[in-house]
Amino acid sequence: MYAAVESEVWLVNGEKIKVAIVGSTGYGGVELIRFLWGHPRVEITSVISASSAGSLLTEGFPHLSEIVVQTLDGVDPAEIAAKADVVFTATPSGVSGKLVPELLEAGLKVIDLSGDFRIKDGSVYETWYKHTAPENGLLEKAVYGLSEIYDKKVEGAGLISNPGCYSTATLLGLIPVLDAGWIDPASIIIDAKSGVSGAGRGTSLMTHYAEINENLKAYKVNKHQHIPEIEQTLSWVAGKPVTVTFTTHLVPMTRGIMCTTYASLLGTYTEGDLIELYRGFYKGRPFVRVREKGIWPATKEVFGSNYCDIGFAADSRTGRLTIISVIDNIVKGAAGQAIQNLNLMMGWDETTGLKLSPVYP
Amino acid sequence: MYAAVESEVWLVNGEKIKVAIVGSTGYGGVELIRFLWGHPRVEITSVISASSAGSLLTEGFPHLSEIVVQTLDGVDPAEIAAKADVVFTATPSGVSGKLVPELLEAGLKVIDLSGDFRIKDGSVYETWYKHTAPENGLLEKAVYGLSEIYDKKVEGAGLISNPGCYSTATLLGLIPVLDAGWIDPASIIIDAKSGVSGAGRGTSLMTHYAEINENLKAYKVNKHQHIPEIEQTLSWVAGKPVTVTFTTHLVPMTRGIMCTTYASLLGTYTEGDLIELYRGFYKGRPFVRVREKGIWPATKEVFGSNYCDIGFAADSRTGRLTIISVIDNIVKGAAGQAIQNLNLMMGWDETTGLKLSPVYP
Amino acid sequence: MYAAVESEVWLVNGEKIKVAIVGSTGYGGVELIRFLWGHPRVEITSVISASSAGSLLTEGFPHLSEIVVQTLDGVDPAEIAAKADVVFTATPSGVSGKLVPELLEAGLKVIDLSGDFRIKDGSVYETWYKHTAPENGLLEKAVYGLSEIYDKKVEGAGLISNPGCYSTATLLGLIPVLDAGWIDPASIIIDAKSGVSGAGRGTSLMTHYAEINENLKAYKVNKHQHIPEIEQTLSWVAGKPVTVTFTTHLVPMTRGIMCTTYASLLGTYTEGDLIELYRGFYKGRPFVRVREKGIWPATKEVFGSNYCDIGFAADSRTGRLTIISVIDNIVKGAAGQAIQNLNLMMGWDETTGLKLSPVYP
Amino acid sequence: MYAAVESEVWLVNGEKIKVAIVGSTGYGGVELIRFLWGHPRVEITSVISASSAGSLLTEGFPHLSEIVVQTLDGVDPAEIAAKADVVFTATPSGVSGKLVPELLEAGLKVIDLSGDFRIKDGSVYETWYKHTAPENGLLEKAVYGLSEIYDKKVEGAGLISNPGCYSTATLLGLIPVLDAGWIDPASIIIDAKSGVSGAGRGTSLMTHYAEINENLKAYKVNKHQHIPEIEQTLSWVAGKPVTVTFTTHLVPMTRGIMCTTYASLLGTYTEGDLIELYRGFYKGRPFVRVREKGIWPATKEVFGSNYCDIGFAADSRTGRLTIISVIDNIVKGAAGQAIQNLNLMMGWDETTGLKLSPVYP
Repeated sequence: MYAAVESEVWLVNGEKIKVAIVGSTGYGGVELIRFLWGHPRVEITSVISASSAGSLLTEGFPHLSEIVVQTLDGVDPAEIAAKADVVFTATPSGVSGKLVPELLEAGLKVIDLSGDFRIKDGSVYETWYKHTAPENGLLEKAVYGLSEIYDKKVEGAGLISNPGCYSTATLLGLIPVLDAGWIDPASIIIDAKSGVSGAGRGTSLMTHYAEINENLKAYKVNKHQHIPEIEQTLSWVAGKPVTVTFTTHLVPMTRGIMCTTYASLLGTYTEGDLIELYRGFYKGRPFVRVREKGIWPATKEVFGSNYCDIGFAADSRTGRLTIISVIDNIVKGAAGQAIQNLNLMMGWDETTGLKLSPVYP
Repeated sequence: MYAAVESEVWLVNGEKIKVAIVGSTGYGGVELIRFLWGHPRVEITSVISASSAGSLLTEGFPHLSEIVVQTLDGVDPAEIAAKADVVFTATPSGVSGKLVPELLEAGLKVIDLSGDFRIKDGSVYETWYKHTAPENGLLEKAVYGLSEIYDKKVEGAGLISNPGCYSTATLLGLIPVLDAGWIDPASIIIDAKSGVSGAGRGTSLMTHYAEINENLKAYKVNKHQHIPEIEQTLSWVAGKPVTVTFTTHLVPMTRGIMCTTYASLLGTYTEGDLIELYRGFYKGRPFVRVREKGIWPATKEVFGSNYCDIGFAADSRTGRLTIISVIDNIVKGAAGQAIQNLNLMMGWDETTGLKLSPVYP
Repeated sequence: MYAAVESEVWLVNGEKIKVAIVGSTGYGGVELIRFLWGHPRVEITSVISASSAGSLLTEGFPHLSEIVVQTLDGVDPAEIAAKADVVFTATPSGVSGKLVPELLEAGLKVIDLSGDFRIKDGSVYETWYKHTAPENGLLEKAVYGLSEIYDKKVEGAGLISNPGCYSTATLLGLIPVLDAGWIDPASIIIDAKSGVSGAGRGTSLMTHYAEINENLKAYKVNKHQHIPEIEQTLSWVAGKPVTVTFTTHLVPMTRGIMCTTYASLLGTYTEGDLIELYRGFYKGRPFVRVREKGIWPATKEVFGSNYCDIGFAADSRTGRLTIISVIDNIVKGAAGQAIQNLNLMMGWDETTGLKLSPVYP
Repeated sequence: MYAAVESEVWLVNGEKIKVAIVGSTGYGGVELIRFLWGHPRVEITSVISASSAGSLLTEGFPHLSEIVVQTLDGVDPAEIAAKADVVFTATPSGVSGKLVPELLEAGLKVIDLSGDFRIKDGSVYETWYKHTAPENGLLEKAVYGLSEIYDKKVEGAGLISNPGCYSTATLLGLIPVLDAGWIDPASIIIDAKSGVSGAGRGTSLMTHYAEINENLKAYKVNKHQHIPEIEQTLSWVAGKPVTVTFTTHLVPMTRGIMCTTYASLLGTYTEGDLIELYRGFYKGRPFVRVREKGIWPATKEVFGSNYCDIGFAADSRTGRLTIISVIDNIVKGAAGQAIQNLNLMMGWDETTGLKLSPVYP
């Protein structure tokens, strides 16, 4: 499906590429390890953690016993470059911005899972993230890795900025209908809900079990840092500035994002029309699945997998479209899409190492 | 706070009124029992169940052991009238519509928790509920018991139609700002989320533990039967027809409803303005609590209690208002508001028997 | 039921006693507030927090908005004594041991919810708790407040040491049959399971939502600090040293403890015999409920309430007895029993302020 | 590792065997599909459901969209034999007993996931299962497929009886130490806890979300039908009759079993001794992992995978051993072990198609 690219020349006869993972003790990091362990063209040569260097990965993650028995390395770009060809940086925003330039300089290809290289306008980044933006050249160089949309740019890229979890679910759900000109770009409202793992492994009262179990919370209403990322991409697609209303909620479950997106239809489109539009748009892209009429996806139906499932309701009473899109926030919203981008970058089939069924129930 | 009403003449010197509960083995029924057990002016004289008559209530609900030790009665209007002054019908839609006329005829005052008497236009009822509507006279006679709004009508009423759970959360959140003329009535979108107990105690695959745990589902998108109830009330308030977009989601928790409601602001109103408006509107009504600026309520903060908590975000970027309102679906969304209506009907303080703090955590 | 005691002389004509709560921002503290708010003979005159003094209680606990609107005080024994007659110390082990003597000296009656005064032998305390024990005189003076067993000692006491949560569930389940001499004291094995709130409100990886949701963990196997407390009380009852095997598990739920206790029967006792024994033993004690034959209690059946429910299985194949006892760890296992002890201390009906039904579902 | 067996002669040059799954719409059935979809030597040629024949598998299980797009077949032994070489029967007890003989007669090899062929003594089966036992010859022929213990018998077998979920966790945890003669066989007590998926996909009040969420229940105390299976196997190992005390609990989570097993040690064995014993016993068997001293496994650490993880506590105070063993009840406790048995039966590496890491968190 993808032409062989320059990266491919590294590999001879089934040789594997060597990858390193910075941030191996976060949820994004261990999920990269889960998938890469079974990836037929990859060898994990270094698992890296600034905070736990020197200890065994399995001390914190006994579920990996007998699977990945490696000692955690510290963060040293030269050492990483000596061990690996490609590095995943599953590091917090603010950290990636400083580390990635050093990794690139050391000759590595980088797939960054933080938000630091997603926003092309450094000042917008600084407004929403409260960190200093990476220098402009790098922001331009970084390819925004929304795999189903920007796959051609990802091929052969040296720095991929992996999209945010909310952004992925929202954008895959909205882009086809916005691109088709069927909705009013000024009318978009996104009501997003996430499982708690999206907040990461750092402890806080917000993610304390007794505070979030049997509870539903809104947070960062209209303030979430994925807003500028979503607006930037929607604006690219619409060809003009798009502003959205965006609410995030924390749901008492570990994994899963659902975005319920509302927009005014500019014509009389049925659910059948929409299904046809989306199936056409995503033809040949196995990780996007469009539900039948009257069926909406649930988060558990993508649990543990790289799928994004989408369903619709077109309401003739109000002229509004409701789009429901779901992903597993740690997979398609982070580690899975990062590996999908690795596959695209390397010119491999995009499903390589990612063909795992959702775990149900 | 409320003038003594005719009902009051029944009672002398701390005498208690006698109440019966039809549908005692559903979640609404047992929750009525939980609160009425501690209600100082009420005596439960009959717990009734069509399906389990003759067995002990505690067989199905051992949590009530040593609390309410009663044998379940069958559904016999004459017998109920012999035992009680007021009857709560926590019966399914379609059942109440037939039973309530008989109970009224037998001389009982009725507080009905089903949807059968909420919609004033019988044909609208039939469209959404797929049952035959009760006769018109009764629909007119039934007072829609949204306690904070229609308290004056509830006083002394003989038939109260207790609002739906989603409707209560939505309407208490929307009415003040709609009544003030601050929002465009054509712009209302309600993204509603509910705990699973809202689906009742009847078993189904939808409420099967392994299907809903660690899962988030949308259902009945634009088709939920609370839509006409919400639209009817909003239309009364706005003085013209209001149509809404309404999505319902099932959240993996037992209790709690959150409605995230979106509307376009017709002027430049700050969150401070909104808080002031709402606190004024609900002055003297202890069960509605308005959060401080930048704080949004979570469902657990009303768990087990009759409160409705409300918070706001006014977004100057989009000109939209986001209202977040939460209730416990079984309490303020059913049994608690029904008892609040009993209190209002009888001319008692509306908090009588309902002064229970939320259970946290 | 209880003779008037000296404490009672404080109160004239429905006057309320004044209570203070140290540790108001922990789960035990807010639960004390939930119950004491509705207690007819108590006024909360000071809510105290070492870490949050000066801020409003409702900042951390918005569920108490419009309920308890008080500013948190600092920990100052003289100031507490000026405001209150009785103080609850819901402080961590190690802290209570130092604070309680000062509170007693200031003239207060103290009900301590920590483990610091439970173990009569200071050296045993130090082995299991790793803190210096309070001085011996105080350990002797402190009454171990297992309400149903030591109620007579609690009456009029000046220092009550409230039992641990696991200990309460275990002991109420075991004491009648041990006291009757029906089991071999050397054969006791307790398999205990707790909801996560038992670990308190301090954040940790162990109580991080994504780590404990959809997970079941054992912890502190044979090392839990409630072991010496259980053994001490069982030894008192048996009249000779009793040693137990005790395992603790963390269950993905917020509230609830279940102890499944195994022991060898010394005779041929049926489940009917056991039920009769237990119902006789706990006659007149409304907070212990013994299930019918073949019915075992579930934790949700006591959720939010002060009940301890008990069920049995006597296995003729193995000659072993299985006892299942459940409590709400924050209520009967902490705040509820502390208030029950207040009631006993004051000579009031032990259910005063505690007559709340379990919240179900 | 395993000698080529007769079955192997079917296959030439990477040809795949054809398998059918009866009971494809139960949780065991869909889990078989999840793993077999990625199994390199298997082709699923028929998915079968008595209740849903003729409809698409994905109607009930949209998570399999684009993965397994097959129409469900009815249960017809001749048709199955025409399509497949091996059939998995994930059918209820009582059903398998009648169906399996017909499948064998039709020339199929059968791996049965029900309890119908586990108990060698038909009368014991009938006592615990309340169904008529299959005829004796078949009970003798059926190989009890506890993979790590009876792998040699499984090789080349024509009928494999896959063990129960509780039995698997209990037996893998107990057999090494019982086999070594280190514990008293008369002292065994098993406190077992299971996620709710173990109860299957059939709806009931017991598995209704609102009844089991935030709840912990004991059930079938000393009555669970896995007791005779456990006792039969322990008796084989001990060489004399072994009777156990066995309690089952339902934990509010979907997947996972933990067995906390107690036994009296017959000598002074340290945790180090036990770890060494177990690691030796399970040497070369990748699906059993023995934890380090002082570390106990949690169910989430095997979620979605075929591992059984084991940890210990040896208590010198009481002379008792506590063994904690965990599995995913649907994988190692059902579908995963069934595939492991297929692998062994076929002479393949036992991990074929099963090399999936646990999903964490």
